[in-house]
Amino acid sequence: MTPNSTMLGDLSPDEFRAAAHAAVDWIAEYLEHPGTVPVRSRVHPGAVRAALPESAPAHGEPLAHMLQDLRDIIMPGITHWNHPGFFAYFANSASYPGILGELLAAGINANGMLWITSPAVTELEQLSLDWLRQLMGLGEGWFGQITDTASVSTFYALAAAREMAGYDIRLRGMAGRAELPRLRVYCSEHAHSSIDKAVIALGLGHDNLVKIPADESFRMRPEALAAAIAADVAAGFHPMAVVPCVGTTSMTSVDPVRAVVRIAREHGCWVHVDAAYGGVTAIVPEMRHFMDGTDDADSFVVNPHKWLFTPMDCSVLYTKHPDALRRAFAVLPEYLLTRNDDDAVNLMDYGIQLGRRFRSLKLWMVMRAFGAEGLAERIRFHCELARDFAGMVHFEGGAWELTAPVTMSLVCFRYAPSGMPEADVARINAEIMERVNSMGRAYLSHTKVNGTYMLRLAIGNIRTDQSHVEVAWADLRTAAAAVMALP
Amino acid sequence: MTPNSTMLGDLSPDEFRAAAHAAVDWIAEYLEHPGTVPVRSRVHPGAVRAALPESAPAHGEPLAHMLQDLRDIIMPGITHWNHPGFFAYFANSASYPGILGELLAAGINANGMLWITSPAVTELEQLSLDWLRQLMGLGEGWFGQITDTASVSTFYALAAAREMAGYDIRLRGMAGRAELPRLRVYCSEHAHSSIDKAVIALGLGHDNLVKIPADESFRMRPEALAAAIAADVAAGFHPMAVVPCVGTTSMTSVDPVRAVVRIAREHGCWVHVDAAYGGVTAIVPEMRHFMDGTDDADSFVVNPHKWLFTPMDCSVLYTKHPDALRRAFAVLPEYLLTRNDDDAVNLMDYGIQLGRRFRSLKLWMVMRAFGAEGLAERIRFHCELARDFAGMVHFEGGAWELTAPVTMSLVCFRYAPSGMPEADVARINAEIMERVNSMGRAYLSHTKVNGTYMLRLAIGNIRTDQSHVEVAWADLRTAAAAVMALP
Repeated sequence: MTPNSTMLGDLSPDEFRAAAHAAVDWIAEYLEHPGTVPVRSRVHPGAVRAALPESAPAHGEPLAHMLQDLRDIIMPGITHWNHPGFFAYFANSASYPGILGELLAAGINANGMLWITSPAVTELEQLSLDWLRQLMGLGEGWFGQITDTASVSTFYALAAAREMAGYDIRLRGMAGRAELPRLRVYCSEHAHSSIDKAVIALGLGHDNLVKIPADESFRMRPEALAAAIAADVAAGFHPMAVVPCVGTTSMTSVDPVRAVVRIAREHGCWVHVDAAYGGVTAIVPEMRHFMDGTDDADSFVVNPHKWLFTPMDCSVLYTKHPDALRRAFAVLPEYLLTRNDDDAVNLMDYGIQLGRRFRSLKLWMVMRAFGAEGLAERIRFHCELARDFAGMVHFEGGAWELTAPVTMSLVCFRYAPSGMPEADVARINAEIMERVNSMGRAYLSHTKVNGTYMLRLAIGNIRTDQSHVEVAWADLRTAAAAVMALP
Repeated sequence: MTPNSTMLGDLSPDEFRAAAHAAVDWIAEYLEHPGTVPVRSRVHPGAVRAALPESAPAHGEPLAHMLQDLRDIIMPGITHWNHPGFFAYFANSASYPGILGELLAAGINANGMLWITSPAVTELEQLSLDWLRQLMGLGEGWFGQITDTASVSTFYALAAAREMAGYDIRLRGMAGRAELPRLRVYCSEHAHSSIDKAVIALGLGHDNLVKIPADESFRMRPEALAAAIAADVAAGFHPMAVVPCVGTTSMTSVDPVRAVVRIAREHGCWVHVDAAYGGVTAIVPEMRHFMDGTDDADSFVVNPHKWLFTPMDCSVLYTKHPDALRRAFAVLPEYLLTRNDDDAVNLMDYGIQLGRRFRSLKLWMVMRAFGAEGLAERIRFHCELARDFAGMVHFEGGAWELTAPVTMSLVCFRYAPSGMPEADVARINAEIMERVNSMGRAYLSHTKVNGTYMLRLAIGNIRTDQSHVEVAWADLRTAAAAVMALP
């Protein structure tokens, strides 16, 4: 058998060119008007899958058929994170330079598992992450690597902390060792579920994640942390790590990292700062204070794919102790040894993943295309929009109320008619949210904190401006009126 | 402050169109002649980084500058996985439909962390993975999810196995529990380092990964597995999981999965099949036997980004027990609850990662563009090329020898002059490999098995044909002659 001209995916280079140019035009058209479709998908569970064939075709099909299915079947099943009315969770936005970076990385398709398997992948990753560190005003000595998600970044950090706890867990494990104390991890009661997942996956036990009470502004209380650690030490437990958060998921509250570090240092605890969402505020000089104390921590995570206009996926784990990650993870089989192992970094040694996509290219292109001031300007603008929205809620008054301080670009609020029982307030706010989300012009999410149900309007999409926030507010008021008018 | 027209990455939609079309033309040109550059990068450590600015610019730069740096500085630092002479490790190749899928996914930039945050992301992922399961001739009842790498897929599988071992490790952890037996994991002595990493990360202890001796064809010996498990049971250990491999990294040997499953079942062990590279051979009817027994396992991993022409990254973890993954990983905070939690799958519940890129789009496009027969034809062709190359080595004879059976598309061989001590054979083969790799027309890697140093020529790139294999063979002979002529 010999290869033939139809073997490259049944595409000739010219067919690829034509299809890729058509795809570019389609994306450009889509992104020029991302607000003209309903932001939240309206399909029913199973509808997308049911509309497609149950099996792969026996023979190749023209790309045009796939693009047609993309338009007709898949796009209605997309919830548009690119929509300027996307205010749920935390935004991911795909800026133009980021999309170009992804396109180029897909074409190059290099795997930077070892330095030699594409030196530029390793070196551009290290350089871009050093650029980002500088943009955030942090000191030197931080080693960065890109992972797919903040959850994985945090998992790696706590794996390093476990290794540094000093019980030879890498080699001997934890089971069947009567002498091993319980290893304890501390975070705020408002910390993200990724901390829970990391502690569980590492085999530390969910019971050994201690949730520290927060103050009235939802910040971890340092004296409560100190007391919890002291009680654990007295009980014979080993305080292993503390995970303060800069920008909690529910309310973007900011834990007092500096105080946390001071307490942690007294007990030899690793400090990992979860700045997955909030870390990029440090690019804005007047907001840099949120990251105060992080330079004295052991590791932190920040996600350019959240609020730095870089397409999914791009999470960054920084650590002061890359050797701890190597001790936790490096395994060097013969088939991965190279002549450059002593004079270059092999990023496979710093985590579980071996294969490594050229993810830094898009981040590097975003930083260059926007520049430091361009990035700061956009983050600042989103925070201004959030304060504007909070002002609308506040000055409207009546049943509308803000439920958390507006620290960054997230506003927490709700509709709470005077004297209404909490269960009813929760019910009507859920109903208001569902009505707004069904209208298709804005998409919000919710949370519940200390029993208080509240709505979240999170701004971070690069295409959002004042008009979209006003639309969300109009739809919220319309929905509230409709819900209150129900019998 | 109001938004202005320069805020979208300093690009207007028309500028994006122009830059993206230019990028498409550049990729098309690159992929039309991927064999005209040296396959392995020739840069020295640090050279790429040193050629770029140390910090991000203060103000945005035109995209043309980045594309210029890409051509002049970054591309020389790329080792070309797209090059038809890439025979090192296992190939990753970016087929045209796969690149289009990546481009479209980057533009859409959906995050399928929950079903509702883009129903099509979850449903196309489940559908494509069911297509792939059918292509591989496997039975029903497999639940699939995409991760970034096989290492993460295997880690998830063993986390599920740990949870199913029944000691409430999720809640209570492993430390400080005297009653907990050591949890043991078994794999062949030739298993991949990702198994080591998973066992270490899970806190089981590297000492508790038992490497089972293999037979003369490098396949795990079932009777040795049975004996190891029996000895561990007698010692009070808990046999937790067995990880047979279909296509080992060093030599693509195939462990006897059916026999392994039978033994594992007697002890309640989870069986996870590492078919990261070799699994796709099941798409070829006459090679389907390699996966025999897998349908009775508990989980397996296969990587479309290895030998299924799908760009990085796309690893697939299949399991018969999705509930075990949920038990191992699911954490449901209020802010992630939705109205569809009871009637749709939220893929965040099956692993650590929360954010989820639209990775299935490229895989779905690859399967449609090639069709079942097109994929089988290409995999079959690569195996024929490997047999051809093995034939060249075998019939050349003299010092050239094959060092492992050719099961799939990998050939293990070396140059071993009669009577030369093993240390010298290793040295000259390393030197031959280095010379071939330096010539720039082929790129090979090596391994060492039972003290035997050998070279690996792995075929899997969609652009490789007979001529590239012949070039590699010519360069190997040239290099061997040169090395032997040295004083």
